[in-house]
Amino acid sequence: MAAEKITSRAKDYSQWYLDIVHRAGLAENSDVRGCMVIKPHGYAIWEKIQRALDRMFKDTGHVNAYFPLFIPKSFLAREEQMAEGFAKECAVITHHRLKAIPGQGVEVDPESKLEEPLIVRPTSETIIWNTYRSWVQSWRDLPLLINQWANVVRWEMRTRLFLRTAEFLWQEGHTAHATQQEAEEETKRIIELYRTFAEEWMAMPVLVGPKSEGQKFPGAVYTLCIEAMMQDKKALQAGTSHFLGQNFAKAFDVTFQNPEGKREYAWATSWGVSTRLIGGLIMTHSDDQGLVLPPRLAPIHAVIVPIYKTEAERSAVLEAANKLEQSIRDLPLREWLNYEPVTVRIDDREQYQPGFKFNEWELKGVPVRVELGPKDLAKGTCVLARRDLPGKEAKEMGVPLTKAATRIAEMLQAMQTALFERARKFREANTYEINSYDEFKKKIEEPGGFLLAHWDGTRETEERIAAETKATIRCIPFDRKKEAGTCMVTGRPSPGRVVFAKAY
Amino acid sequence: MAAEKITSRAKDYSQWYLDIVHRAGLAENSDVRGCMVIKPHGYAIWEKIQRALDRMFKDTGHVNAYFPLFIPKSFLAREEQMAEGFAKECAVITHHRLKAIPGQGVEVDPESKLEEPLIVRPTSETIIWNTYRSWVQSWRDLPLLINQWANVVRWEMRTRLFLRTAEFLWQEGHTAHATQQEAEEETKRIIELYRTFAEEWMAMPVLVGPKSEGQKFPGAVYTLCIEAMMQDKKALQAGTSHFLGQNFAKAFDVTFQNPEGKREYAWATSWGVSTRLIGGLIMTHSDDQGLVLPPRLAPIHAVIVPIYKTEAERSAVLEAANKLEQSIRDLPLREWLNYEPVTVRIDDREQYQPGFKFNEWELKGVPVRVELGPKDLAKGTCVLARRDLPGKEAKEMGVPLTKAATRIAEMLQAMQTALFERARKFREANTYEINSYDEFKKKIEEPGGFLLAHWDGTRETEERIAAETKATIRCIPFDRKKEAGTCMVTGRPSPGRVVFAKAY
Repeated sequence: MAAEKITSRAKDYSQWYLDIVHRAGLAENSDVRGCMVIKPHGYAIWEKIQRALDRMFKDTGHVNAYFPLFIPKSFLAREEQMAEGFAKECAVITHHRLKAIPGQGVEVDPESKLEEPLIVRPTSETIIWNTYRSWVQSWRDLPLLINQWANVVRWEMRTRLFLRTAEFLWQEGHTAHATQQEAEEETKRIIELYRTFAEEWMAMPVLVGPKSEGQKFPGAVYTLCIEAMMQDKKALQAGTSHFLGQNFAKAFDVTFQNPEGKREYAWATSWGVSTRLIGGLIMTHSDDQGLVLPPRLAPIHAVIVPIYKTEAERSAVLEAANKLEQSIRDLPLREWLNYEPVTVRIDDREQYQPGFKFNEWELKGVPVRVELGPKDLAKGTCVLARRDLPGKEAKEMGVPLTKAATRIAEMLQAMQTALFERARKFREANTYEINSYDEFKKKIEEPGGFLLAHWDGTRETEERIAAETKATIRCIPFDRKKEAGTCMVTGRPSPGRVVFAKAY
Repeated sequence: MAAEKITSRAKDYSQWYLDIVHRAGLAENSDVRGCMVIKPHGYAIWEKIQRALDRMFKDTGHVNAYFPLFIPKSFLAREEQMAEGFAKECAVITHHRLKAIPGQGVEVDPESKLEEPLIVRPTSETIIWNTYRSWVQSWRDLPLLINQWANVVRWEMRTRLFLRTAEFLWQEGHTAHATQQEAEEETKRIIELYRTFAEEWMAMPVLVGPKSEGQKFPGAVYTLCIEAMMQDKKALQAGTSHFLGQNFAKAFDVTFQNPEGKREYAWATSWGVSTRLIGGLIMTHSDDQGLVLPPRLAPIHAVIVPIYKTEAERSAVLEAANKLEQSIRDLPLREWLNYEPVTVRIDDREQYQPGFKFNEWELKGVPVRVELGPKDLAKGTCVLARRDLPGKEAKEMGVPLTKAATRIAEMLQAMQTALFERARKFREANTYEINSYDEFKKKIEEPGGFLLAHWDGTRETEERIAAETKATIRCIPFDRKKEAGTCMVTGRPSPGRVVFAKAY
């Protein structure tokens, strides 16, 4: 059972991505249109993401709650932009009963028609703000800093595992505040939290700043985003934080008495990241051998592959492997790993050869591999291999067994940093300042990347560029340099460059 | 703002339950029929439940995954009992688009009708076994030991917060095995795991054993359950583990090649517990002052209420409170608490009096309260109060501040044990051996409780008893004593007593 190689990035980037998703056991399409099955290895990554984010939310004063899966149709109509943005493609529940037809299976019972259809939540602003109405009476009840981990459904026509599916898992924060300033500070706090998570946990560098009007969330006053570059130089929106003003408070009549005894509408934010992040992880770090995972989010940190021929060798090698496993488990990495355990696996499956196992664990993205055979054992050493380094560079021979655990801890930490640095350099190498629309149109096709260009700030120009080049404005970075210029399309004044790219 | 008392159990048990759910901030009804909002304090309890169970599942070799929310209608029809059991009342998705009607909101777009309606999962056996078909080829692929944390929907007509809602949260395990024996062992292993969780974490004693044929899960060969007694002496089914035989493997054609090269159908189990457990927690331990939580599942373990009048007193008391808080946080309870932190809150809200705060934290079920005022401070002591003890017995005066944290740890552990013991004694005091149907009919009304009676093993008799008394067979306990007898209704032979009760 020799495993076939996965498609290379150079040959077919899309197929490479799907090969990794399938062959690393992350996810697969289901028989339900657009819905994926997240397989155990993929879900384990999601659990790591959840744990790290959840702790960050709680450390900043947020609490979790749970709101209904269903939204009455009329709720969607209350906030105008929301209705336009989300009502179009969604799962609509119209009946609540099936009946058995003898010999023909089951049919929808027409007598069970609902008075008002229900929508499976595409996002929960409406149902949550409808609930907040009774939770908020006085300024003392504010702020509400609530997050929900949930599944949501958007009836996407063209799906792609993790990146765009009809059902996906996410977290959605919904906060209510007494003042505009507080709500805007929260919007900013969260996008910075997302930046920290993306960079320090996912090792994925991101640009941070507002979206243009044309790209913002329906119902938001403005949207802040984190935006990453994938290895095919396309952009991935990885998280958004919305300042919603008083739009939802007005739509759902959420008012409070301020300290002066006057009634005011509450101020809102909402923010979310989803299982899409797993797609981002894959496309930021993986290579032609398979998945590469930043150690802080890896479900398995190290795998020990014992090598032996005789039964005597087997028992000696396994004994040493067990000892090493325990010393790796005891590594003082708990804080760095968010108080999750260091996870080690000894792959002592009899039916496979070591070479097969090496490939399999490479494919699955385990950061460090330990090779341990009778010759190593005789010398009291082992071989370590780091997943992200190429060829021979990856291997460290003759590492003393007594020092192997410590060396593995160093490798994990070095790999986390190296992945981030590599991705940052890649993004920098593929970011260009562009000064004419002709140059833009060429460059967006070849070589592609992030194009920094002046734009006149109008939706009209943005839409024209999108129609003509398929590039959209990804982000107006907070840290862009101050540089007045003129729009590359219309020649009108521009206060600074914005980031264009083709995107997922 | 003096808080109103909650309804007493003696006066109106149902209202007492709802008062606690509402006033302790656990949950409320939403504007969506039958769906609840789980509020932050309620959700925090669910998170504790999840963490403890999830670790137990993983420690026994299970992994998590995620399967689609939607199930094609035709899947439900494949397994006959399943279709009968679940098809009746469910949320049916028939369309995938709304359209805006100018001035009239949004309407279901008739052109978006689905070819095949989708059902929101009431349970996931069908979609999961449809997926397993491609995961299982050889005996080497088995067992599959997979769990899913998810929301499910059953269109319940009469709902009750936590106990019976249209949407609820749960975990559902779905395992596939090569042999009947292995699958039956898994079924048993899980019900014992649930028993351990119920008794050691929830402090809720349970009976363990199979359900009768009439009470088993649709599609199961047999169902094992844990069954608890609530304070109104009614039974609550708290968790079930089903041996499904080869029913789903046959319905979804899941076969594997055994070591001898022959194809066989896989053997299945499924098992679950849900947010219903929170209802069970409330009704097992709470009292007329509000929620009582077993410390191992309490979101907040201790609250410190500082008492002061002057500013100087305030700062001295708060300084001592902060020190005490840190020493409580550092208590070596991490393993006992499943590696979750010890959580302490200092309630320094200015707008409320200490007495109000005492009542509020009692209502919310915080296990230990610390009272700390200037007089205590002068003596270097504080007052501790344990939530589950009555009146003066609850208070320990003059506890040295240097020893308070250790004393709190002891109180938490003692309270966990005491709650279990109290509940166990309550159940024993309300369990009766009954020897005639006349006696049974009287006793089930007054005083109620668990009635142990002989039954002839037929569905007919079981149904007659249910129709005449509203009592059902809750469980045939594994540890029932060996005692042949005759059915109290028909006089036919019975191999032992079974447990009857009215149930939620």
